Amino acid sequence: MKQTTIDKFSQERDRLNKIMSNYTSLTTNRFLSLDNQMYREGALPQNTKELLGLVASLVLRCDDCINYHLKNCFDLGYSDAEIEEAMSIGLLVGGSIVIPHLRRAFAVWSEMRGNETETK
Amino acid sequence: MKQTTIDKFSQERDRLNKIMSNYTSLTTNRFLSLDNQMYREGALPQNTKELLGLVASLVLRCDDCINYHLKNCFDLGYSDAEIEEAMSIGLLVGGSIVIPHLRRAFAVWSEMRGNETETK
Amino acid sequence: MKQTTIDKFSQERDRLNKIMSNYTSLTTNRFLSLDNQMYREGALPQNTKELLGLVASLVLRCDDCINYHLKNCFDLGYSDAEIEEAMSIGLLVGGSIVIPHLRRAFAVWSEMRGNETETK
Amino acid sequence: MKQTTIDKFSQERDRLNKIMSNYTSLTTNRFLSLDNQMYREGALPQNTKELLGLVASLVLRCDDCINYHLKNCFDLGYSDAEIEEAMSIGLLVGGSIVIPHLRRAFAVWSEMRGNETETK
Amino acid sequence: MKQTTIDKFSQERDRLNKIMSNYTSLTTNRFLSLDNQMYREGALPQNTKELLGLVASLVLRCDDCINYHLKNCFDLGYSDAEIEEAMSIGLLVGGSIVIPHLRRAFAVWSEMRGNETETK
Amino acid sequence: MKQTTIDKFSQERDRLNKIMSNYTSLTTNRFLSLDNQMYREGALPQNTKELLGLVASLVLRCDDCINYHLKNCFDLGYSDAEIEEAMSIGLLVGGSIVIPHLRRAFAVWSEMRGNETETK
Repeated sequence: MKQTTIDKFSQERDRLNKIMSNYTSLTTNRFLSLDNQMYREGALPQNTKELLGLVASLVLRCDDCINYHLKNCFDLGYSDAEIEEAMSIGLLVGGSIVIPHLRRAFAVWSEMRGNETETK
Repeated sequence: MKQTTIDKFSQERDRLNKIMSNYTSLTTNRFLSLDNQMYREGALPQNTKELLGLVASLVLRCDDCINYHLKNCFDLGYSDAEIEEAMSIGLLVGGSIVIPHLRRAFAVWSEMRGNETETK
Repeated sequence: MKQTTIDKFSQERDRLNKIMSNYTSLTTNRFLSLDNQMYREGALPQNTKELLGLVASLVLRCDDCINYHLKNCFDLGYSDAEIEEAMSIGLLVGGSIVIPHLRRAFAVWSEMRGNETETK
Repeated sequence: MKQTTIDKFSQERDRLNKIMSNYTSLTTNRFLSLDNQMYREGALPQNTKELLGLVASLVLRCDDCINYHLKNCFDLGYSDAEIEEAMSIGLLVGGSIVIPHLRRAFAVWSEMRGNETETK
Repeated sequence: MKQTTIDKFSQERDRLNKIMSNYTSLTTNRFLSLDNQMYREGALPQNTKELLGLVASLVLRCDDCINYHLKNCFDLGYSDAEIEEAMSIGLLVGGSIVIPHLRRAFAVWSEMRGNETETK
Repeated sequence: MKQTTIDKFSQERDRLNKIMSNYTSLTTNRFLSLDNQMYREGALPQNTKELLGLVASLVLRCDDCINYHLKNCFDLGYSDAEIEEAMSIGLLVGGSIVIPHLRRAFAVWSEMRGNETETK
């Protein structure tokens, strides 16, 4: 079975996390733990928080972070139109320098939707 | 009557927008128009979009942009807990370099809440 | 025939643009359209505008954006010395963090010049 | 006689440069010297180089750097339309986060043009 | 007695911290607590860690963060030459866009040294 | 014999440096020369300076720059705990957006330690 971009990303992420965990101290571990808990349901619903994580990652132009939140947004059931609208905010706030990341994000999204090869 | 930080910010913003409008061409005007329309109700509710604008502004560390979206979030009725949670995402994604902007953002928020001088 | 770095970049860019175009809304499309028109001849000559795009991409450290403008600068007939001088401005403004992008940019430029393997 | 924004900026810059010069070492001095020489006439004309400095400063969102290059661009005789077009590139590449800097830049430009208070 | 730049900065920082503390939740508080503990003596000596904080703040161009670490570096007994050398690394890594922050940092340093008005 | 990540990185870096050297002018060459000399023993010991370079590269999120300084820190004999502590400062200052670079940095560090495949 063909491995998707997100599968490969998640697998590599797990591999590197294991290596990293051999070295990290209390401070780093506490930060990573805070980072994990942060996106849970709270005063804001979890799906809003994931969307905030996605747009923050987009304007800061980090592909790995975009992939991570895009996958979570997919699992939470966001529609194409909602994701597109959130990413359009990232594009306008962050400018054309964001476009290469936007292209890759839509390719990953399309792949998760099962439409990797579709063209108009 | 005392003028608030946001009042001063909005007034100065209006003054500069008027000066800028004497110079801007079609490209800039179209961008500014897109920027204005972007936060309107769409596939995502307007208040989610304002929150996305706020967190994007926070991680990119732009006080004027933070003030702008914070005012809109206030007008849309966000609670203290919701705003704090959104900003905590900006803090963890963007790191301690965000703290000075976070401090100023809470001072502006507190002032809008009518609690400028409150201390624990 | 051997495919160049820029050929591969352009091909992948086209592939991703097609996928992206299945999702983008009016706001994103308008932004992308503005972005396309922006570098056309206007008050400033087109070649000056491409150079502005190149240096902006360099200081913001986006390889795809650098490749895009470098290719256009090549097609517009810029000399080695002119491109080097523009990129030296990007280097000094952006600092040593720009160096890895500068290295890759010169490799792409050299390849377009037909000198990929040259060494002093 | 009223002191302009640029006058105040230049005066403060000179004052701080003097203090800094009491501390800087060979490395810093060489960097500052390179930075000064970089915008001189070379393979590219001086006015193109100043425009590159302006747009790089705009996308990196540094008001002092913008003021510095804007003043030089003014002295080199750039027209309103040329400056506006260069800055529109900075705006689209850098995104809406650039807008507050753009507003202040046009106010400084307008003041240098002698039109500080003009409105449409 | 005349209040120094750092006195004013610290006072305003305290004032804003008090306001912020009325709003912050567990996540933000834990992050702020981690941030406080991070610069304590550990595997690395405290003064090395403050220098790391200073240079990180310089390349990320945050005046408040620079002031905070510069004050701590002063209190830890760093010499002019050591601070200058650390900041020259920030300058070369971060580029000329760092210069305005460098100027202000040296003015604050000079003031802490008791030499505010010195010129060569 | 298996080539390590750092071997590949250094080899590619050398290859690109040779190409770049066919194009660079006096300004770029002087900058690159300053950059080389900057990390030498001075008012600050060389190993402190390499650590400053590492953390600056981490918060600015440049993998090549991180690899370069990580290799030098390894050669200078830094311990796991010291490197981890320096990188935890980069993580907290730069935020969760730094995590993907941190993961890759620990994988490279682990590989240099001869522990590439270790897991807890």
